[in-house]
Order: sequence, then structure tokens, then C-alpha cells
Amino acid sequence: MWNKTTLSQQLQIDYPIIQAPMAGGHTTPELIAAVSNSGGLGSLGAGYMAPEEIRETVRKIRKLTDKAFSVNLFIPENPQEDHAKINKINKVMALYRQELGLPPLAETSQYGPPFEEQMEVVLEEKVPVFSFTFGLLAKEWIAELKAERIPIMGTATTVKEAIVLEEHGVDMLVAQGSEAGGHRGTFLSDAEDSLIGTFALVPQIVDQIKIPVIAAGSIMDGRGIAAALILGAAGVQSGTVFLTCNESGTKPVHQEALLYHTEEETRLTRVFSGKLARGIKNKFMLEMQVHQENVPDYPIQNVLTQDLRQAAARQELPEYMSLWAGQGLRLCRKISVQELMKEMVAGVEESLHRIK
Amino acid sequence: MWNKTTLSQQLQIDYPIIQAPMAGGHTTPELIAAVSNSGGLGSLGAGYMAPEEIRETVRKIRKLTDKAFSVNLFIPENPQEDHAKINKINKVMALYRQELGLPPLAETSQYGPPFEEQMEVVLEEKVPVFSFTFGLLAKEWIAELKAERIPIMGTATTVKEAIVLEEHGVDMLVAQGSEAGGHRGTFLSDAEDSLIGTFALVPQIVDQIKIPVIAAGSIMDGRGIAAALILGAAGVQSGTVFLTCNESGTKPVHQEALLYHTEEETRLTRVFSGKLARGIKNKFMLEMQVHQENVPDYPIQNVLTQDLRQAAARQELPEYMSLWAGQGLRLCRKISVQELMKEMVAGVEESLHRIK
Repeated sequence: MWNKTTLSQQLQIDYPIIQAPMAGGHTTPELIAAVSNSGGLGSLGAGYMAPEEIRETVRKIRKLTDKAFSVNLFIPENPQEDHAKINKINKVMALYRQELGLPPLAETSQYGPPFEEQMEVVLEEKVPVFSFTFGLLAKEWIAELKAERIPIMGTATTVKEAIVLEEHGVDMLVAQGSEAGGHRGTFLSDAEDSLIGTFALVPQIVDQIKIPVIAAGSIMDGRGIAAALILGAAGVQSGTVFLTCNESGTKPVHQEALLYHTEEETRLTRVFSGKLARGIKNKFMLEMQVHQENVPDYPIQNVLTQDLRQAAARQELPEYMSLWAGQGLRLCRKISVQELMKEMVAGVEESLHRIK
Repeated sequence: MWNKTTLSQQLQIDYPIIQAPMAGGHTTPELIAAVSNSGGLGSLGAGYMAPEEIRETVRKIRKLTDKAFSVNLFIPENPQEDHAKINKINKVMALYRQELGLPPLAETSQYGPPFEEQMEVVLEEKVPVFSFTFGLLAKEWIAELKAERIPIMGTATTVKEAIVLEEHGVDMLVAQGSEAGGHRGTFLSDAEDSLIGTFALVPQIVDQIKIPVIAAGSIMDGRGIAAALILGAAGVQSGTVFLTCNESGTKPVHQEALLYHTEEETRLTRVFSGKLARGIKNKFMLEMQVHQENVPDYPIQNVLTQDLRQAAARQELPEYMSLWAGQGLRLCRKISVQELMKEMVAGVEESLHRIK
């Protein structure tokens, strides 16, 4: 059977379908539990969450499902703070803040939640699966997770990153193709050189490593799942298609953008967070592009734009929000998770049957 | 059977595997005939060829095979000649010319072979299949080809282009994913917005049109063929993997570059021809990047760099050649066409069997 892969065995799931851990309020306990209850692996995008918020959310998920799910964190980065650069970009963004009725930005030196405390919650709560992106997890954490028998999933965007992750001790890895929405997981190479299409990336990684490979990047339906398995993946990770599910926490204006835009309308940009990410083109993305030389590195820019993006979401102004989306967005539909998962599974079987 | 698609019936071939028509001396009669004799569709990249050269080559191919093959032409573009721009870029490139021992560039107003005469040869020789890229073929030519019952194949890089091509009357189309090597076939949208990964492009096009879709972009082996068929393609077009075949006309230094570089080392550039194309990074590509604002549009820049690229090839200096390559290049091998085709076909069957 197509669904009995090494991955589904390792993760104790019925179907090797992982809902991508999309940070920023998309992955509600309801979404995650519905995916896991439908036989896949729901995932909490906890990268931006405070430690205690992670703990509460994990407990909420456990009230909704007794199946496996994963928690995803961002490997911390500590770029040099360039105050001249920060001032310059804040001056540019002051106009947008004014438009949204926000006061001038207060100074900050806190760039994201404390990673060590996030990890401690992950271990204390003994989450069923742990995944990470944006780098390599320190060896001590790998050892602690292994001691708790928690499967560890890394993220690679090139063959080299996949090889390094395997050597580093992860149990499985996501191969993130250039089609994928949201942030690039690139950590070894230049992000621009690491935009490898899913079709090229998956087989080239599969050929070089032994651990299970999870294909990501425009896996939107059963056809995509079957094709990824054919290319040698042991499973898939889908993000964009879950954003328009009824259970998702994605803002209605963002969902609408996903439903009405096409594959030509996404772009890769650093202007929202300082790290390359794919989203639907809007005013903020296009206007800020000319200032990209002055955009501070992630996570600094992410913090600088945070309340701006939040205010835009509250005021339902998609032109100032980060409308993350993968290139398969024409295949997004308004649907329940249960229905989507059922269609995905049936779609795999149909598409395999079709070309036999 | 997987190989009995509408496409293989229309083209009268055993396997829906098309060797991409790569212009510039790669597609020798021997390569084309070997592909067709192995059950696929060999293709002549005739875009840069003089009409009489096309005729002679078609006749040579016919001496080597009685199977179907295709001839591909470039839809002509007539950009405004900006003499100030041309002078500027020629000044930059004068240094490279000097290095390669070339005299200063003589003025030209001839930018590529006469398209009408190329088309007349195609019709007079009644080639088995005609394909085109870089635009839409004028309706009169479509009518003449149809009168001769020659199947017509267009090239799309977005869903919109696919819809327009179908409405225009082509019989089938190549969906060129962003992984593909060589020139982008984009003709309606901005080339940068039309870099859609194969995994995203194929199903989204298949959903919108009725004619057969041929997937292109990192289809390197049987796994890739099977995956493309699963995504809904009726066949595949492979380019890069044929460049390192024994029968290919690809220069040995270019072949070597394909065999020893990785998926991180290709880049999209306009500096060789004025049109966006994917190739292995080298000195010319990287150094010229800063002058890209002054690069004239295709086909002007293509003519301006022509003898430079040719001299570099003669002198075996890959740093000045256009080393076209797709993102799947790790899967290139030195092999005969017959062996490659055999492995591709066996690979489809193996990979389908593996996940049944």
C-alpha cells in the first residue's frame, strides 16, 4: 500500500501527509487535531510563540486528539544589530505606520521568544514529534529529544543541507522546493541559490541520504502526493492548501487572496521579515522592494514589521499583510480538513490507478 | 499501460518521452534519430539555423530514422534597436573579446535567420511534428501546418499562456517549469513572474485545458516521467539529461560542467542572449550581471555575444560559454541514448511498481 511508508510507521500515522507548521496563528489546535484525527500529522507552527503559550496550545491539541502531531520551532539567528540600517528602514516604514494609525516604533532588543525555554516546554510536554527549520538544532537538544524518543524532523532546501542534517542526527527531513509558500528554510547556502524546484530537489536528495524525505512545495492534492512518492519521497508536507480550510486560523482577507490569485502572483521577498519568503504580491511588498538593501536581517526586520502586519490584519488591509502562499494556490479551496484529507487520499489512489 | 497516452498516439511514438529541441548545435541528427529509434521523439532545435541548413539536417535525420521527430523554431521578436545601449554593452564586452583574441564587433542589423523561410522549409519538408517557443505562431502558419496534418506543439510557462495557446489552435503544449535549463518560453507575462516550478505548473495547467500537456523541467529519469504522468501530463520533455549523451553535439567542456556541478550552481540570467535562461554560473554570467540594465533585448544581445561564445567553445573556455543546464543536473550521466531511453522506460515501471 502506498501509505505504508517508513515515515508513516515512524510517525505512527495512517497517511504520510503532514500539515506544514505555519507560524503566525494559522495552525490552530482545531486545524492540527483535525489533520491528525484524519490520519495525517498536524503541526503547530510555534516559532513565534512564547514558551507558556506553546505549553497551553499543546495541551489544547491533546484535548482534541490522542493521535500524533508535531511542534515546529525556528533555530535562532543572532545577526549584528546595525542601528543606522534599522533607523533608515524605520523611517521608510513610518509612513505605513501612520497610515495604519500606529504610533512611532519603540526601540526593542528582544527579537523573538527565548529558544531554550521553548525547547524546554517541548521536552517537558513530550510532544509526539519535533520539527525545526532555519538551521541545525544543537547536538545537546538532539540528544535530549532522542532520550525521550521524540522523532526529529529537519528542513533542507539543497542536497548539501540534507546531507548535513542527516549527519547531524535528524530522523527525517523536509525537502522544501522553491514552489513552497512562506519562509525558506535555507541555512547553508545563499537563499537565492537554494530555490530548487520540488521536482528537481526531491530525487536529488533521495539519492544522497538514507533517512525518509518529506516533499514540500506545491503538494496540493492526491496527484501531488502520489507524484512526490513516485519521486522517492516517503511522505509530503502541505502548507498552502490547509490555509483555506475551515479550521485554519488564517485571516479571512488572506484566505480570500489565496482563493482569487494565480500562480503568477506570488513572489519571493525579504521585506517582511528579513528572510526570503514567498507570498502574494501586494503594495507593501512591491513598494518596499526598492529599499531592500536597507532591510535588516531576520529576525530584526520581522520584529520591526510585527505590529504593522498585525494592525493591517485587524483592519483587514491585505496590502500591508504578509500573504504567504505557495505557487500551487489555484488549487486552494474553502473546505473542511476532514473532507480535504479524504479527497487527498482518494486522489492518490485514483491517480495511481489512472496510469497503471 | 502508462505509455499509451493521447500524446503518444498523436505523435505515433512508443513512449511519451520527448528530447527537448535545444538550439545551438546540441541536437545532432544522430541524437535525434537515436531518441526516435528508441521509441521517443527526437527534436531538432532549429531556432538559430539558416533555412537551407534546416533542410539538410532534416534530410540527414530521415536517413537515420523512419520514425517521427520534431523541428522547433523560435517565434521572432523585433525589439527596438537602442544604439546607445548596444554601444555601452559592446564596450563592456570588448574586454572579453580581447581576451579571446577577437577583433572589435562589426555592426549588424541581422538578428537571426528569416523566420518565414525557416517555416517554408518546415512545410516543404513535411516534418513529422512542429514545435515552437517564445510566443504564438501566426494563424496562417497554423492553418498551413494543419493542412499538412503536422501536429503543432506550443510552449507555456504559465496557466494563462497555456489557455491562450490552446485557443490559438495548437494540438499539444509543453509546460516549462522553472527548473528547466536554457531559455524561458515566456511570452505573455513578466519572465520573473513566470518561474513556476514543474510540480506547481503541470496540474494547474492540466486543470484548465483539454489538449495534452507535456511536462518539462528536471525530468531526468523514470521516476520523473512517472511523477509527471501522475500529475496529469500526457508526456514529458527532457533536455539536460540528453546533453551528456554520447550522441549529443554539446561541447565536451559543457558536458563536463554538467557532470561536475550541483543543483545550487545554476542561475537564471539575461546576459547571454537578452532573454532569461538557466545555466551553470560562470565568470561571464556573474561579471556581466552588474551591467544587466544595459543588456539589449533578445535577439540583439544574442547576436552581440555570438562569436564570443563560439570562440570560447573553440578555445575550451567554459567561463565564457552559455552552459545551459536545468536544476536536475546531478542526474546527468555519460551514456548512450539507447541505454538512457531503456533505463527511463524501466524506471517508470519500477517506480510505479514500488508504490502500488
